[in-house]
Amino acid sequence: MEYSCQTYQLKCNECGRTYGNRPLSGCPECLAPLEIHYDFEAIQKQTPITRQSIQNGPHNIWRYAAMLPIPEGFEPDLPVGFTPLIRAKNLGKRIGASNLYVKNDSVCFPTLSFKDRVVSVALANAQKFGFKTVGCSSTGNLANSVAAQAARLGLDACILVPADLEPAKILNTLVYGARLVRIDGNYDHVNRLCTQIADEYAWGFVNVNLRPYYAEGSKTQGYEIAEQLGWRLPDNVVCPMAGGSLIRKIRKAFNELIALGLVEDKPVRFFGAQATGCSPISQSVRQGWDYIEPQRPNTIARSLAIGNPADGPAASKMIRATGGWAEDVSDVEVVSGMQELAESEGIFTETAGGVTTAVTARLYAQGRISPDETTVVCITGNGLKTTDALVGRFDHLDARAVRPRLSDFADYLRELDGVTENELVAAD
Amino acid sequence: MEYSCQTYQLKCNECGRTYGNRPLSGCPECLAPLEIHYDFEAIQKQTPITRQSIQNGPHNIWRYAAMLPIPEGFEPDLPVGFTPLIRAKNLGKRIGASNLYVKNDSVCFPTLSFKDRVVSVALANAQKFGFKTVGCSSTGNLANSVAAQAARLGLDACILVPADLEPAKILNTLVYGARLVRIDGNYDHVNRLCTQIADEYAWGFVNVNLRPYYAEGSKTQGYEIAEQLGWRLPDNVVCPMAGGSLIRKIRKAFNELIALGLVEDKPVRFFGAQATGCSPISQSVRQGWDYIEPQRPNTIARSLAIGNPADGPAASKMIRATGGWAEDVSDVEVVSGMQELAESEGIFTETAGGVTTAVTARLYAQGRISPDETTVVCITGNGLKTTDALVGRFDHLDARAVRPRLSDFADYLRELDGVTENELVAAD
Ligand SMILES: Cc1ncc(COP(=O)(O)O)c(C=O)c1O
Ligand SMILES: Cc1ncc(COP(=O)(O)O)c(C=O)c1O
Ligand SMILES: [Zn+2]
Ligand SMILES: [Zn+2]
Repeated sequence: MEYSCQTYQLKCNECGRTYGNRPLSGCPECLAPLEIHYDFEAIQKQTPITRQSIQNGPHNIWRYAAMLPIPEGFEPDLPVGFTPLIRAKNLGKRIGASNLYVKNDSVCFPTLSFKDRVVSVALANAQKFGFKTVGCSSTGNLANSVAAQAARLGLDACILVPADLEPAKILNTLVYGARLVRIDGNYDHVNRLCTQIADEYAWGFVNVNLRPYYAEGSKTQGYEIAEQLGWRLPDNVVCPMAGGSLIRKIRKAFNELIALGLVEDKPVRFFGAQATGCSPISQSVRQGWDYIEPQRPNTIARSLAIGNPADGPAASKMIRATGGWAEDVSDVEVVSGMQELAESEGIFTETAGGVTTAVTARLYAQGRISPDETTVVCITGNGLKTTDALVGRFDHLDARAVRPRLSDFADYLRELDGVTENELVAAD
Repeated sequence: MEYSCQTYQLKCNECGRTYGNRPLSGCPECLAPLEIHYDFEAIQKQTPITRQSIQNGPHNIWRYAAMLPIPEGFEPDLPVGFTPLIRAKNLGKRIGASNLYVKNDSVCFPTLSFKDRVVSVALANAQKFGFKTVGCSSTGNLANSVAAQAARLGLDACILVPADLEPAKILNTLVYGARLVRIDGNYDHVNRLCTQIADEYAWGFVNVNLRPYYAEGSKTQGYEIAEQLGWRLPDNVVCPMAGGSLIRKIRKAFNELIALGLVEDKPVRFFGAQATGCSPISQSVRQGWDYIEPQRPNTIARSLAIGNPADGPAASKMIRATGGWAEDVSDVEVVSGMQELAESEGIFTETAGGVTTAVTARLYAQGRISPDETTVVCITGNGLKTTDALVGRFDHLDARAVRPRLSDFADYLRELDGVTENELVAAD
C-alpha cells in the first residue's frame, strides 16, 4: 500500500523525515502530523504551472491538479468545486464593509459543502492505495461527501458520526447506501474510535490514515479565491474552524501561488470563526496560547463541534502570525447570521455559515477589519442540512392556510404586514 | 411598463400578432399564450453567435444572453447554471443503458433547482419593467428561487404555495425574508388566484404576467446539454413535467442551435416523466390526445403536482411529434428512483428526480430507448428539499447509538451486515 511519485510525498513537519506516499498521518518517529511536501522545481520543469495553463484546465478543482497530491494516471471523475465568489454588497452595507466577497461552497458539487474538495483528493489516493472500503469520522458534511463519492466510485463506505447529528445529514449519508454508525459520544470519541478501526480493518479513513492527502484538497478553495479575484490575494479571509484544517490550507494555497509567481506577494490576515459552545481555537487565539484546551462541545453548529481539534494549535499560531484574530458567537447569533446572509445575498447556509457571517459582522464592528479592505468570507455548507436550527424562528410554518380568493388574500396580507409592523414597534 | 428591443418581442403562437415587450402572457385577441420571438438575423448582424463567442462568455447561463430575452444594459448579477453533465455509467449498468448522461440541476446555483434559470431571466425583465414587488405561484422550487434572487436584488417578494408543501421548501422561502402565503388548495387554485393578484396589485409574477420571459430561461438547460456533449445533440432527452414548460424549451433550444449552425441537425426524441398521482400530460401522450384532462394531484412528487398544466397540450403534441413517449410512475417507484440515483451516481435528488429516474428505467425496460443511444436524463431538483419522502426507508435514523469502543463497533457491524444479508434472503 504505497506508491512512488517524483513530485510530492509525505514529510514530517517537526523532524523533516520523508515517507513517500502511503496511508499514514503521523510521523512514526516523533508523532507529529505529516503533510504533503511538493518538489515545485521538479513540477515546474515537467510542465510549468502558469495562469494560462490553469485557465486552460477544466472548470473545477482539477485545473489545479498539478498542485495537489493526485497520483499519476488518475482520471478525474467528478467536476468538484469552482464555486461562485460573490460580491456581497448588501451584506456589506448591513455590516459596514465596502469590499466584501462571499466564497459560496454551499453549492459545491456534489454534496453542497467544501468537504467535497477534500474527499475527492482523498479518494483518488484511496483507490491508488487499493482500499476497497473507505470511511471517516464526521460532524456531518464529511459523511455526506464520502458516502456520495464512494457510491459513484464503487467503493464500500463505513461512516461514523456522533449520535446527535442533524436528521438531514444522517439521511443524506444513508441515501447513498453507505453503512452509517451513530456513536454514543461526541466527535472526539468518534475520531478516536476511527483511528483504532483504520488499523484493525485496513480501511481508508479519509480524515485518519489518509488525512495528509485529504487536507490538501482544502487548498483549492484558496486557489479559487485568488483566481476569481483576478489573480490577486485579498486583505483578509474569514473562515470557520472545526479541526482547524481549512483555514491553514487556504493560507498554504496563497503561499504556493506567491512562490509560483502566480500572484503578487502581499500580507493576508486570517480570521477564524467558531461557535462559543465549541471554541477551543478562538479561545487559544485570544489567550495567545500555543496550545488548545479541549472543550466539550455544546452548540447548534454541529459541523464545527470538534472539542479537541487536530490542527488547532497550528491554526491558532498561524492566525496570530498573520496579524489576524478569532471570535466566537452564541447560538442565537448563529441563527441571526444565517438569516442575515439569506436576506441580504440570497444565500441559505447551514449553522457553520451562520457562525462565519456573525463573526464577520463582529470583526467589522470591533474595527479589526476596515471597511475598504478586500475581505473574503468562506461560506462552507448548505442551509438545507440544518433546517432544525431555524424552525422556531418562523411561526409561519404552521400559519393558517388562506382560501384561494382575492378578498381572503387581501385580508391576510393586511394581517401579515400588520403583524410585521407591530413586531417592529415592539422591537424598538 | 414596456420596453422596446430590436432583437426580440412577444408574439402570439396562434394569430401571429406581436406585442413588443411588456408584462403580458396571453394574446388579448385570441387568448393563446404569448412566446418570445427572436429576430436571429438582426442578432447575427449585431454580433454573430458562434461556438467561440459563447465559450468566451462566463461559465454560467449568461454566456447565452444573446439568445435570451435579456434587456439591453442588464448586468448579470448571479452566476446561475452551467451545472454538471455527468456520464452515468453505474446507473446505466443497472438499467441497461450504455450511453447515459445526467444533467444535474440539483446543484444549480443559487437555490438547487433548474428554476434558478427561469427566475433570473424573469427578474431581469421585472426590473426593466419597474416592478418593486415580484411573486409567483409555486410547487416549491420556484418559491425558493424567487425568494432568494429577489432578496439579492432588493425586490419585495410575495409567494403563494399550496398549503401542503414540504417543510424544507417553506423554510427555504421564508429564510430569505419573503412574504409567503399558504393557500388552502392545490397548485391550480393557487395559480388562478395569482392571475387575479397580478392584475389587482401590479406585481410582477414570474410565472403569470412575466411567464413568456420566465419560460425562456429553461432553454439554457438545452444549450448547456448540447455544448457539454461537445456541440452535439443527444438521441433522447428524458425530462420531468409539471406545467410542461421545461421539456418544450429544451427542444426550442436545440432547434435554435441547429438554426444558428452551432450543432448538426439530427432527430431528438423527447420523453416526459410524471408521477401517476398527477399525470395529465403523460395520459394525454399515451391516449394520443391533443388536449389535457385536468387531474386532482395526489402524489409525493409535489413539485410536479400541477393538475391542469398550462403548456400541457403543447408538450403532449411536441413529444409525439418527435417520436417520443411519456410514462408515469407510482410513489413507491419515485422513492426507489431517488435511491437508485443516489446509490449509483452519488446524486441526491428530490422526488421529481426520482420520477425521472424511475421513468428512464422503465423506458429502457420497455425497449423504447435502445441501450447504445445517447440519452440525457434531466435531474432538476435537490433531495434535501424532500427528505420526508425517504424517512420511512431508513430504520437507521433512530437506530441505537453504539458505544465508542472497538469491540462494540465490531458487534454492531456484524449485526448491521447480518440484517442486510437477511433482508436480501427475504427479498429473493
Ligand atoms: C460546513 C463546515 N465548515 C467548516 C468546517 C471546518 O473545517 P476544518 O475541520 O477544516 O476546520 C467544517 C468541518 O467539518 C464544516 O463541515
Ligand atoms: C424539480 C422540478 N422539476 C421539474 C419541474 C417541471 O417543470 P415544468 O413546469 O416546466 O414542466 C418542476 C416544476 O416546478 C420542478 O420543480
Ligand atoms: Zn517526525
Ligand atoms: Zn393571438
